Amino acid sequence: MTIKPLADRVVIKMEEAEETTKSGIVLAGSAKEKPQVASIVAVGPGGMVDGNQIDMYVKVGDKVITSKYSGTEVKIDGEEYTIVRQSDILAVVE
Amino acid sequence: MTIKPLADRVVIKMEEAEETTKSGIVLAGSAKEKPQVASIVAVGPGGMVDGNQIDMYVKVGDKVITSKYSGTEVKIDGEEYTIVRQSDILAVVE
Amino acid sequence: MTIKPLADRVVIKMEEAEETTKSGIVLAGSAKEKPQVASIVAVGPGGMVDGNQIDMYVKVGDKVITSKYSGTEVKIDGEEYTIVRQSDILAVVE
Amino acid sequence: MTIKPLADRVVIKMEEAEETTKSGIVLAGSAKEKPQVASIVAVGPGGMVDGNQIDMYVKVGDKVITSKYSGTEVKIDGEEYTIVRQSDILAVVE
Amino acid sequence: MTIKPLADRVVIKMEEAEETTKSGIVLAGSAKEKPQVASIVAVGPGGMVDGNQIDMYVKVGDKVITSKYSGTEVKIDGEEYTIVRQSDILAVVE
Amino acid sequence: MTIKPLADRVVIKMEEAEETTKSGIVLAGSAKEKPQVASIVAVGPGGMVDGNQIDMYVKVGDKVITSKYSGTEVKIDGEEYTIVRQSDILAVVE
Amino acid sequence: MTIKPLADRVVIKMEEAEETTKSGIVLAGSAKEKPQVASIVAVGPGGMVDGNQIDMYVKVGDKVITSKYSGTEVKIDGEEYTIVRQSDILAVVE
Repeated sequence: MTIKPLADRVVIKMEEAEETTKSGIVLAGSAKEKPQVASIVAVGPGGMVDGNQIDMYVKVGDKVITSKYSGTEVKIDGEEYTIVRQSDILAVVE
Repeated sequence: MTIKPLADRVVIKMEEAEETTKSGIVLAGSAKEKPQVASIVAVGPGGMVDGNQIDMYVKVGDKVITSKYSGTEVKIDGEEYTIVRQSDILAVVE
Repeated sequence: MTIKPLADRVVIKMEEAEETTKSGIVLAGSAKEKPQVASIVAVGPGGMVDGNQIDMYVKVGDKVITSKYSGTEVKIDGEEYTIVRQSDILAVVE
Repeated sequence: MTIKPLADRVVIKMEEAEETTKSGIVLAGSAKEKPQVASIVAVGPGGMVDGNQIDMYVKVGDKVITSKYSGTEVKIDGEEYTIVRQSDILAVVE
Repeated sequence: MTIKPLADRVVIKMEEAEETTKSGIVLAGSAKEKPQVASIVAVGPGGMVDGNQIDMYVKVGDKVITSKYSGTEVKIDGEEYTIVRQSDILAVVE
Repeated sequence: MTIKPLADRVVIKMEEAEETTKSGIVLAGSAKEKPQVASIVAVGPGGMVDGNQIDMYVKVGDKVITSKYSGTEVKIDGEEYTIVRQSDILAVVE
Repeated sequence: MTIKPLADRVVIKMEEAEETTKSGIVLAGSAKEKPQVASIVAVGPGGMVDGNQIDMYVKVGDKVITSKYSGTEVKIDGEEYTIVRQSDILAVVE
């Protein structure tokens, strides 16, 4: 199944990031903090949203940071995704 | 009885989806998670809503994901439906 | 007494619907679910509401479904009515 | 003292209505339900309110139904009035 | 000290009104109800407020009724005043 | 350090006002009421704020009254200031 | 990793400021108050946000004061940053 987001929505997938502490220890699972970086897997077409024309400036593959608690979590084919508005994306990390 | 949604509203029906776990077990009834995919059974005409012109871009038969808790549940002829605004539809799945 | 709703308001009357269960039993009174279908008994003239021009597209006699809890209940000549905005009407049933 | 309401405001006076039950008994005082019908005693001039031009379409003497809990109760010369916005008036009864 | 209200604000002073009951008794202090009529002591210049052009239509000396709880109470030179927006003034009494 | 407020913001400093009671006693410290008059120490440039063009009409040195609880308190070089929007300033006192 | 904020967002880093009390004692760690001054490390491109054209007037290196509790805290490469909207920045300090 493929998810095609509507309007100004973007489908993201949280990264299963390993986190290396300053002392060099790699944390995994619940011992590490919840990652805040997600990958964009699908981008909506934009268009008129609440009376404003929205152009999409993020693209598939971007690593992004979103507002905490924003978006709706969905499970498709056993994989967990989050659907957010483009305006919930705070920054791109490179 | 037929439901004809007004303005930017859309009538959806939650899918009675079977869910297959990664290990291949098919879950049914309360043992499976609540499905998040619904089928569109009727689409309103769009038009002026709160001062904005709304064009409808979803159509009958689309499989869609909606915001949790959005919409109003109705029971017509013993069947349960949910009426949502088009803007509560996050994505189409194919 | 006649009720003439103002602006974008609509007067509806909840149907005292009998409900037939799938097994054919007719439920009455408190044993049945609260009906969600109402009949329109009066329609306001529309016009400017909160800075937007509202045209009325429902008409007297329409059977409609409204948002739960929307509207104001009034009792005129011993009959109970509900006054809602047209925008609280989700769908027409036929 | 005379009350001259400003902008889109309307001064109403709750009717001390007698209510006749279906069996013909006339209820008075606390035994009857709170009346929901009020008489308009003064109408503001309308004009620009929150950036919208408001025209007044109710007039002194109209019997009206208002949203419950809307408005501000005032006591002038020992008489109780309620000041509401025209948009809080749901319907005129005749 | 003189208070010059800004924008659409108005400085009012609650009247220390005596209230005469229907039986002719004059109530004073805490035995009487809080007066709801205030005198305007200063009026702001109006102008652009939240993107709307506001013209002032009340004037110094007007006796007015305001929404309960609206405004900010201030004490200048030992005198108590309330600063409200013109839109919080419901009516003028004459 | 100098504070330069942005957009429609204004930096104010609460006056350490002595208050003389009607009987002539000068109150100081916690025995007196919190002063409500502040001095403006810096004014932002105005400009577009939330889609509206804001012109600044207060100036450094003005004694002003602000809404209670409005603004953000900051401590710069050991001095306490409050940063408010111009629209939180109710009046100028002279 | 580099953070590139989107739209009207700005990445700031709280200053690990030493604070010298009036008596000349330097406070460190939890004994001092939380610093309220932050440095801007990245500035978004501005553009259309909620239907308004936003021009960015802050720049990398500015020392700024923000509304308390505004923004989202993120941790990138072990460093903590806060992402705020430009409109959450109250003032620049020099």
